[in-house]
Amino acid sequence: MRMYDVIAKKKHNEELSTEEINYFVNGFTKGEIPDYQVSALLMAIYFNKMNERETVDLTMAMVNSGDKLDLSKIEGIKVDKHSTGGVGDTTTLVLGPMVAALGIPVAKMSGRGLGHTGGTIDKLESFKGFSMDIAEEDFIKNVNEIKIALAAQTGDLAPADKKIYALRDVTATVDNLSLIASSIMSKKIASGADAIVLDVKVGKGAFMKTPEDVKDLANAMVSIGKSIGRETRAVISDMDQPLGLAIGNSLEVVEAIETLKGNGPKDLMELCLALGSNMVLLAKKASSLEEAREMLMESITSGKALEKFKDLISAQGGDASYIDDTSKFEKAKYIVPVVSEKSGYVKRINAENIGIVAMELGAGRATKESVIDLAVGIVLNKKRGDYVEAGEALAYIHSNHEEKIEKAKNDIIKNYELVSEYKDDIPLIFDVIK
Amino acid sequence: MRMYDVIAKKKHNEELSTEEINYFVNGFTKGEIPDYQVSALLMAIYFNKMNERETVDLTMAMVNSGDKLDLSKIEGIKVDKHSTGGVGDTTTLVLGPMVAALGIPVAKMSGRGLGHTGGTIDKLESFKGFSMDIAEEDFIKNVNEIKIALAAQTGDLAPADKKIYALRDVTATVDNLSLIASSIMSKKIASGADAIVLDVKVGKGAFMKTPEDVKDLANAMVSIGKSIGRETRAVISDMDQPLGLAIGNSLEVVEAIETLKGNGPKDLMELCLALGSNMVLLAKKASSLEEAREMLMESITSGKALEKFKDLISAQGGDASYIDDTSKFEKAKYIVPVVSEKSGYVKRINAENIGIVAMELGAGRATKESVIDLAVGIVLNKKRGDYVEAGEALAYIHSNHEEKIEKAKNDIIKNYELVSEYKDDIPLIFDVIK
Repeated sequence: MRMYDVIAKKKHNEELSTEEINYFVNGFTKGEIPDYQVSALLMAIYFNKMNERETVDLTMAMVNSGDKLDLSKIEGIKVDKHSTGGVGDTTTLVLGPMVAALGIPVAKMSGRGLGHTGGTIDKLESFKGFSMDIAEEDFIKNVNEIKIALAAQTGDLAPADKKIYALRDVTATVDNLSLIASSIMSKKIASGADAIVLDVKVGKGAFMKTPEDVKDLANAMVSIGKSIGRETRAVISDMDQPLGLAIGNSLEVVEAIETLKGNGPKDLMELCLALGSNMVLLAKKASSLEEAREMLMESITSGKALEKFKDLISAQGGDASYIDDTSKFEKAKYIVPVVSEKSGYVKRINAENIGIVAMELGAGRATKESVIDLAVGIVLNKKRGDYVEAGEALAYIHSNHEEKIEKAKNDIIKNYELVSEYKDDIPLIFDVIK
Repeated sequence: MRMYDVIAKKKHNEELSTEEINYFVNGFTKGEIPDYQVSALLMAIYFNKMNERETVDLTMAMVNSGDKLDLSKIEGIKVDKHSTGGVGDTTTLVLGPMVAALGIPVAKMSGRGLGHTGGTIDKLESFKGFSMDIAEEDFIKNVNEIKIALAAQTGDLAPADKKIYALRDVTATVDNLSLIASSIMSKKIASGADAIVLDVKVGKGAFMKTPEDVKDLANAMVSIGKSIGRETRAVISDMDQPLGLAIGNSLEVVEAIETLKGNGPKDLMELCLALGSNMVLLAKKASSLEEAREMLMESITSGKALEKFKDLISAQGGDASYIDDTSKFEKAKYIVPVVSEKSGYVKRINAENIGIVAMELGAGRATKESVIDLAVGIVLNKKRGDYVEAGEALAYIHSNHEEKIEKAKNDIIKNYELVSEYKDDIPLIFDVIK
C-alpha cells in the first residue's frame, strides 16, 4: 500500500477501505508517513468528505493507536459526559456529584482549558490541596467507594488523534464533520465508558455557530458511538451567551456549589437536568427521562449531591470546608461593576468575546504555556432577555490588575447588545439526538 | 501574513492576491514555510483551482525564485521550443538544425529522460565526445557563431518549481491545470527566450489523455506567455502512438539524421514542419506559415539542416563523422523482430506502454539513479493504419540482454491492437493555440 494512492483515491472521491484508513493512521502515528502527505489527505477529506463507515473506521484506528482505559473493575454502567467546550460551562462540577449521588459511577477524565474555554482541572485547583493527578488504581477505588473520581487524562489515549489534530490546526483542515466527530469520539471511547452523553454547544461561544452544522456533528458522533456498541446521546445546547453567570475558575466553582445548594442560575440547573437525565437513563437507573429528572432534583433538595461533591473533594486531597464557607476561595483584589449607560433589553451577549475578556483578565490560557489566575473572571449580572436600566451593572469584573479593568469594561459593554424591545425565544436545549 | 490564512482562503474558494502567492512561494523556497502547509494548499488549489491572474502570479513567483538566463548577448529573436514529453519524440534533434539553418538562433536548455519519456541530453550522448555541459559564455558564443547550442540546464532556474513539483509528485497534486502550466512556463521564462512554441502532446503516451484537457492546458500556457509579453504558441499533437519509428537513444539519433537527410518517418517530419513554421514566424523570418514551411523544407532538400547538425555536434566536442556513417553508433547485441501471429490493420499502439518496454530494455530511467544503455530500444515496423500480414514484423527489439527479449516481445504484441477493418483518422496535429 502507498500513501500516494490513498491520497489520490480520496481526491477522486472514492471511499477509503478500512485497511487504507488503518494504514495511514498507524503509519502517521509511527512517523513512517510524512506530515506533508497526511495534510494533503486531510484537505482532500475536507473537500470530498468521509461517509459513516469511513468515519467509524477513522475513529477506531485512532482509538487503537494508543492505550485504552480499562474501567471493567468499576461496578455498574459507566456513563461519560463530554462537552464540546463553552464559556462559563460549569456542568461537570454540578452534574458529576448529582449523578454520583444516585449511585451511578462517574469516572471522568478532564482536561485543562485553552483559549476562551475553561477546563475542569483548572477550576478544581481552586480547592486548596485538590489534585487530579491520581493513580489509576486510586481512581478506580474512589469510583467504587464514593461513585465519583475526576482525573487528568493519563496514559497515551488516542495519540493518533493528538498528532492529526496538531496538523489540522496549522493546515486549515479542522472544520470537517468526520474529522471533528472522530477526534472527540476516539478520546471518549479510549477513556473506556460504556455509554456517552455529549453536550454539543451551538452559537457564538461554541466551536460551531449554526444549529444545522451542530446537528450534523451530533448525528455523526451518535452514529459512531452506536456502531461500535457504546450507547451515545447528544444534547444540543445554546452557547450563544455564556452558561450561568460566572466565568473564571474559582468563580465557577462557587457557582457550582450554589447550584448544588439549589441556588444556581436557572440555565445551568436546567442543562444539568437535561444532560443528567439522559445519563441516568443510559445507566439504567430510571425507566424514563421524567423519572430520571425527578431523581436528580431530589439529589439537590436532599443535599445528597452537595455531600457527594464534598466526598469528591476530600477523596482527592482537597479542603472540603470551602464548600460550606465559599469565602475561603481566593478572591480578586478588584471587583468592579460594568455599568450600562443605556437602558434596554439584552438581545445578545457574545459568549466567545466575553470568554476572551475573561481570558485576558487571566482566567484562561492564550497559549498552552500561559499561567492561570484562579481568582479572576467575570460574573454576569444580566443575561439575554433581561431588562437593564441605565446605571445598572451588566456584569462584575474580578481582576488582580487595576490596569486591565478599563479595557475589560469597554469590551464587555461592546459585547452586550441592548434593544428597546425583545423577547428571548432562543431555547437552551435545541434538540436531543439519540 | 500567515500561511494558515492563505490555505484557508483558497480552501474557501477565494482568490489569492499577488502578495499571498509571492509569500508562500518565497517562504517555501527559503524553507520558512513547512511542506505540510504547502501540500495542504496544493490540494486546496486542486479542488478550487486558480484563475488566470493567480496562475500568472504563481509562474512569475517561481521565475523570480532563482536565476534567470540572460540571452541578451545573442543576436536576433530567440524562440524556444518545449515538448510536454512523449515516446520516441525526436523533434528537438531535427527541428533545432532546421531552424538554425535559416539563421534563427536556437539556444536550448534540455533535460534528461525519466520514466517512459526520453531526454535530449541522453540521446546526444550517443555521439562520442559530445557534451552538453558547456559554460554559459561558450553557449552564447556558439549560438552567435553557428546559430545553435544545446546545453544541460545550468544555474538555479525556478528552484521554487523544483521544490513544489517534488511535493506535488508525492501528494497526488500534479494534475491541476494552473500548477502544470506554471511549472512548465516558469522554467521556459527563466530560460530567457523571447518567444516560445509549445508542443503539447495528447493521448495514451502523453501526460494528458484527452484533447479537451490538453486544449485547456495549452490555452493556460499561451495566456501566461502573452500576459508577460513573451509570444507563445501551442501545437497540440498526437501521442497516442509513438512519434516516428525509433524509441531509444542512439536509435532516435539515427532516425533524426535520416529525417534531416529527407528520409525520415512522415509523422516526425510533419510535426517538425508544424512546430518549425510557428517558430520561424515568431522569429519574424517569414510573413506566413506557408512561407515558413517552404523555407524549412528547403533546409532539408538543400542539405543545410544536416550541415547545421554537424556544426552543432562538432562545436560541442562530438564526432560528427557519425552523421555521414551512422554505423559508427554503438549497436545492441541482439536485434530481434517481434512477429505478428495475426493479420489485420493496426488500430492502436499504446505509446506509454511501448515507452515502458523500451525503458525496461534499458533505454530509459525507472528512477533518477538508473543508468541508461544508449544502444537499446525498439524500432517500430508498423504504425497506426498499417496492414500487417501474419508472420510480418510489428517492430524490432534492440537489446543487450538476451533474457529481456521474450518479455519485451510479449509486451509489444499486447500493446498492438489489430482489427480486420480500420481507417486511421486521428490527426497528427489537433490544433494550434495562439
